[in-house]
Amino acid sequence: MTDVSREPFSFFCKKIRFGLFGKSHGPCIGCVLEGIPAGTPIDEEAVAADLELRKPSKGIGTDRKEADKAVFVSGVKNGAADGTPIRIEIANGNTDGSKYLEFETTPRPGHADMPALLKMPDFDIRGGGQFSGRLTAAIVAAGAVAKGMIESKGIKVGAFCRSIGNVSDDGERTINDAFASRKYPTRGCTAELDSRMNDEIMAARSDGDSVGGVVECIITGLPIGFGGIWFESLDAEIAGAVFGIPACKGVEFGKGFGITSMRGSQSNDGYRMKDGRIVTESNNMGGIVGGMADGQPVVFRAAFKPTPSIAKKQHTVNLKEQCDADLEIKGRHDPCIAPRAVSVVEAVTALIIADQMERGL
Amino acid sequence: MTDVSREPFSFFCKKIRFGLFGKSHGPCIGCVLEGIPAGTPIDEEAVAADLELRKPSKGIGTDRKEADKAVFVSGVKNGAADGTPIRIEIANGNTDGSKYLEFETTPRPGHADMPALLKMPDFDIRGGGQFSGRLTAAIVAAGAVAKGMIESKGIKVGAFCRSIGNVSDDGERTINDAFASRKYPTRGCTAELDSRMNDEIMAARSDGDSVGGVVECIITGLPIGFGGIWFESLDAEIAGAVFGIPACKGVEFGKGFGITSMRGSQSNDGYRMKDGRIVTESNNMGGIVGGMADGQPVVFRAAFKPTPSIAKKQHTVNLKEQCDADLEIKGRHDPCIAPRAVSVVEAVTALIIADQMERGL
Amino acid sequence: MTDVSREPFSFFCKKIRFGLFGKSHGPCIGCVLEGIPAGTPIDEEAVAADLELRKPSKGIGTDRKEADKAVFVSGVKNGAADGTPIRIEIANGNTDGSKYLEFETTPRPGHADMPALLKMPDFDIRGGGQFSGRLTAAIVAAGAVAKGMIESKGIKVGAFCRSIGNVSDDGERTINDAFASRKYPTRGCTAELDSRMNDEIMAARSDGDSVGGVVECIITGLPIGFGGIWFESLDAEIAGAVFGIPACKGVEFGKGFGITSMRGSQSNDGYRMKDGRIVTESNNMGGIVGGMADGQPVVFRAAFKPTPSIAKKQHTVNLKEQCDADLEIKGRHDPCIAPRAVSVVEAVTALIIADQMERGL
Amino acid sequence: MTDVSREPFSFFCKKIRFGLFGKSHGPCIGCVLEGIPAGTPIDEEAVAADLELRKPSKGIGTDRKEADKAVFVSGVKNGAADGTPIRIEIANGNTDGSKYLEFETTPRPGHADMPALLKMPDFDIRGGGQFSGRLTAAIVAAGAVAKGMIESKGIKVGAFCRSIGNVSDDGERTINDAFASRKYPTRGCTAELDSRMNDEIMAARSDGDSVGGVVECIITGLPIGFGGIWFESLDAEIAGAVFGIPACKGVEFGKGFGITSMRGSQSNDGYRMKDGRIVTESNNMGGIVGGMADGQPVVFRAAFKPTPSIAKKQHTVNLKEQCDADLEIKGRHDPCIAPRAVSVVEAVTALIIADQMERGL
Repeated sequence: MTDVSREPFSFFCKKIRFGLFGKSHGPCIGCVLEGIPAGTPIDEEAVAADLELRKPSKGIGTDRKEADKAVFVSGVKNGAADGTPIRIEIANGNTDGSKYLEFETTPRPGHADMPALLKMPDFDIRGGGQFSGRLTAAIVAAGAVAKGMIESKGIKVGAFCRSIGNVSDDGERTINDAFASRKYPTRGCTAELDSRMNDEIMAARSDGDSVGGVVECIITGLPIGFGGIWFESLDAEIAGAVFGIPACKGVEFGKGFGITSMRGSQSNDGYRMKDGRIVTESNNMGGIVGGMADGQPVVFRAAFKPTPSIAKKQHTVNLKEQCDADLEIKGRHDPCIAPRAVSVVEAVTALIIADQMERGL
Repeated sequence: MTDVSREPFSFFCKKIRFGLFGKSHGPCIGCVLEGIPAGTPIDEEAVAADLELRKPSKGIGTDRKEADKAVFVSGVKNGAADGTPIRIEIANGNTDGSKYLEFETTPRPGHADMPALLKMPDFDIRGGGQFSGRLTAAIVAAGAVAKGMIESKGIKVGAFCRSIGNVSDDGERTINDAFASRKYPTRGCTAELDSRMNDEIMAARSDGDSVGGVVECIITGLPIGFGGIWFESLDAEIAGAVFGIPACKGVEFGKGFGITSMRGSQSNDGYRMKDGRIVTESNNMGGIVGGMADGQPVVFRAAFKPTPSIAKKQHTVNLKEQCDADLEIKGRHDPCIAPRAVSVVEAVTALIIADQMERGL
Repeated sequence: MTDVSREPFSFFCKKIRFGLFGKSHGPCIGCVLEGIPAGTPIDEEAVAADLELRKPSKGIGTDRKEADKAVFVSGVKNGAADGTPIRIEIANGNTDGSKYLEFETTPRPGHADMPALLKMPDFDIRGGGQFSGRLTAAIVAAGAVAKGMIESKGIKVGAFCRSIGNVSDDGERTINDAFASRKYPTRGCTAELDSRMNDEIMAARSDGDSVGGVVECIITGLPIGFGGIWFESLDAEIAGAVFGIPACKGVEFGKGFGITSMRGSQSNDGYRMKDGRIVTESNNMGGIVGGMADGQPVVFRAAFKPTPSIAKKQHTVNLKEQCDADLEIKGRHDPCIAPRAVSVVEAVTALIIADQMERGL
Repeated sequence: MTDVSREPFSFFCKKIRFGLFGKSHGPCIGCVLEGIPAGTPIDEEAVAADLELRKPSKGIGTDRKEADKAVFVSGVKNGAADGTPIRIEIANGNTDGSKYLEFETTPRPGHADMPALLKMPDFDIRGGGQFSGRLTAAIVAAGAVAKGMIESKGIKVGAFCRSIGNVSDDGERTINDAFASRKYPTRGCTAELDSRMNDEIMAARSDGDSVGGVVECIITGLPIGFGGIWFESLDAEIAGAVFGIPACKGVEFGKGFGITSMRGSQSNDGYRMKDGRIVTESNNMGGIVGGMADGQPVVFRAAFKPTPSIAKKQHTVNLKEQCDADLEIKGRHDPCIAPRAVSVVEAVTALIIADQMERGL
């Protein structure tokens, strides 16, 4: 009997069933996409390009190096979906799990370790097991497929870092700014922001510490009325998916939490006619009313906490001895995961839109 | 052929399938709950009590008066679920839809009107149709059933208003404070906060305007490790459901967006042993790591925008004439929906927990 | 708390979700059809016509008289599906359940009574409760909707009685013969067969007894290759649905059980070209190979057992006294249900085809 | 881009989701079983034993030799299900597909070839592709897992050959007879029947022909009342699954088609009390009334057509030339598949029962 998890264990999307599988230190990770219509073009170069953007950057990223080559094991023929489930596998190369074994005894604060160890007697903690952020590579690959589907309908998704630690981007940003951030390792929108964000991350790193950040995502091209209703509304399904990304602690659309101290007369986006089309005078709603697109760009932000794995000494417990303990984490870790989360936010957003599109919402 | 929508059109939960039906100005609204185990006690008094808390309060609430009596049409026998789907219906009494007809021509900013009218040629706009907040009464009734299920396992859910407009509650709050808020119309935690929040709402009302607010929800009693993984994690499913409530523009757990400017050494909740149990030294994570409960109370906040229906003059468009127009909304509206949203947040949270419980997560 | 079952409890179809609800002696029976595409024409006259064919005929049928008027409670607007779930309700008029109460003590052989009473402490036995053949009226109504969908693609379904008791129709029959049987109460294909089948039923009736029969169903117009694969094959899904009809004890396609004593050289349907199209030289497979339509008419037969409710004295047990007992059933019963099952077989077949069509199989 | 189908494409069961994948001449076939409760023992020896019974026997079976070793790739740990999906893979060893290529031009009568080629431009016909009976090995492996689940509740499933061609077993058979048939290559119940059935098969083989057969299946130990209702009834779901097995053309329970010429007074199984338990005086219903078990052994039969691949010359068409053609099939084929279908019938039956058991029906 082998022990290689290759079956999906976590699903989202309804008509397009997305299932994630694998572990950080197993032979591979990957996902299964059911429901992609036969004939949908699968652009493997676009998939590779998105995976490239998710890779850690020199300096601000982890030293773990992975080829991150997505292999379409089934469901694709002659560059297009053949209508059967698509299985994507990405090999795990650089797996030295020995450093993780101590966490079975002294779980890392801020990680899944402690509840996972108490819940699952056989939990394989190496690399964080099935909770590892490494699995987001499979999400990015699937998201690239979804992007192809929605782009053919004129819908685009772009994200960037709105803030890293205390460095915040206060500018008005468009989807083209988001696309421009692909040039910059920190995913800030400008060279100047990239430089400051880089410094913020390196400062934390040199302290053996980490920082968080806010990712902002913009969607353009959604027809007015696009989106489901109530618990199937566009914002509800996007928010649920974004919260599925590890380390996400908050999601807000438009003015978000800031809207709660506004008056309705300020927050409502008034309508005007312009060149024969209905436009809003502001975009406090983030492009969504009643769960549906209102014709403005959809804008939302996601808060990512500081990487919990830090070199600094932390308080933990020794599960075997049932006593207090200290922990200093060695290993290889990103001092800030927000720049790499940008691609993942784009991916889940594209998957939700493609799914709602297929559902005819 | 009649035209009475009594079939659910929006679903959440996986093992417990929850479906919502009805319209603001149809004969009734309601929901269907599939998957409640046979024998689950159904306490109709508890359902009535929760519905009472959702009702508008004198002064700060709308003048629309509804009996809000939940009728268990099927699925319940001798005070317990019989294993078949449970249908709950709540009659619509006070329906004078005539005031809504003008919105077919001049849609209300901040409401679903505009995209709904463009998307659905036959959209029945009276009371906001299927988008009406009135449907939350059915959610509250179903949530009361779910509360009974989870309370029998020692799990409690309580919510309150953390802020209304610019009045903010800066205290440390426990679930008992949340329960205490049931005495106060604004759902503030103390008499003093209730008074100040009431003034904030009445000030907006007297200006023909509205305000928003932040609802905070606390869950206690979840065993360590409770919750699914990735897109089925506890926070992802709660967030998705809370975003399904109309007017919600943001959700954050623990320190939420604030965590992004912290260092990992500050944000990580260190572990200590106390009386033979693992406890955390802080609760920045809001009781959830890796998507699972960590033994601390789960704490999250939801941002509700100001009620979009206001008396003040607003900019809109005339859909027939395809020109700019002004709008002054008469009708009966809550100048702040946050106090009434408190019950709804509790309800969807209880439903998600009951569902994850039934799924064995 | 009321006790009126109006929620579906039994489902089939995958994309078109069909759910059945109600009881023989509740206020109504009915069904819910989810997934009918918006804009699908709903022809209420066609529905009424199919319900008329299911009604008992004078003499050979039960004396219970029901109006069997299908009311489209929701999901239909201006003669077409509006994309939300369609709820069909049929009132129960003629309900005198008092005659059934004795069966709580002395269950009827051949009926669901005994296992239902042992399984469900609160089983409402009047009219057979949720097991009553009366619920097939809702299936016929839904089937009429499905027929409309498939007829628009040139697909037709027709059924008739191949045998009643010992009276067997040995002719070659086409779908036009099946349609012709609508003239005859026994659903035999000719006046002469109708007369002999009528005599067979009346002979059983006058003996206080009942007889069974075989219903044959023919489908034309399916494109070559139509149908799913393995457990989703056309024959597997049709057979499963037909076995869902009460009293069905067997289903066979083409030569059916007779094929097992043939040689492959006899049973294989050889191919020939004819007028530029591929045709088979025989139809032993009943129009299906590999689970898919092969271009021939699909032909299958379903065996319906004799009505278990008979006037003759039978052996049963007294559940209260836990002793042997005799039973003579009074009430109103069809001495042969095969003629009425013809409409139901057509309905479930149309539903399965419509569902596979919508699934793109 | 590789072209190896390893994703399931055909599903049955509802709570236990069973998905089949692979092709006759790909690297492997297999299946995925979701929903097996964590901790369910997985007895790999029992799996191997059932796979052994499905193998072709010397003389009456095909000469294609396969190791048929089921590998549990994921979902099993320390001899038990770990709660995640179980993936079973069985390698394809003996794959020489060259003999199949001619069928792309001249499809085999009685096979899926013709509709598959017309429906799917890229259909890989080697070994019959995804329609190959070889995939039943994966079903048998999954069925062995299900057998373990139901046997722990005292439920047993056993099948045997009731007839082969014109050799019919007219004896009363019990589940122990079914178990005894495991000794005999033809799956007849006695040595004498095995000998006669063997002769029947060898006679067909020597003629370059094939024969069909009837498989009978017996289930014991089901509690009274076990089974769903209407389209989820025990017989409906078993019949649907059995029709999913290739070459099945008929299914009947109890007296089956024979019951249609009986009178109700004969067909009804009267009840008697015996040793404090309710028993029936006969078993014409095959152990099922109202879709539920009545306490008698459940008995059903399935008709399997003669193997369509025969050496004798047959009529077909040339799809390229669009003209009539003749075909003589070489390759390696079972002259009768009924003996090997016995294991598959047992497997799908066990899966359906395990699924209904998990659904609490």
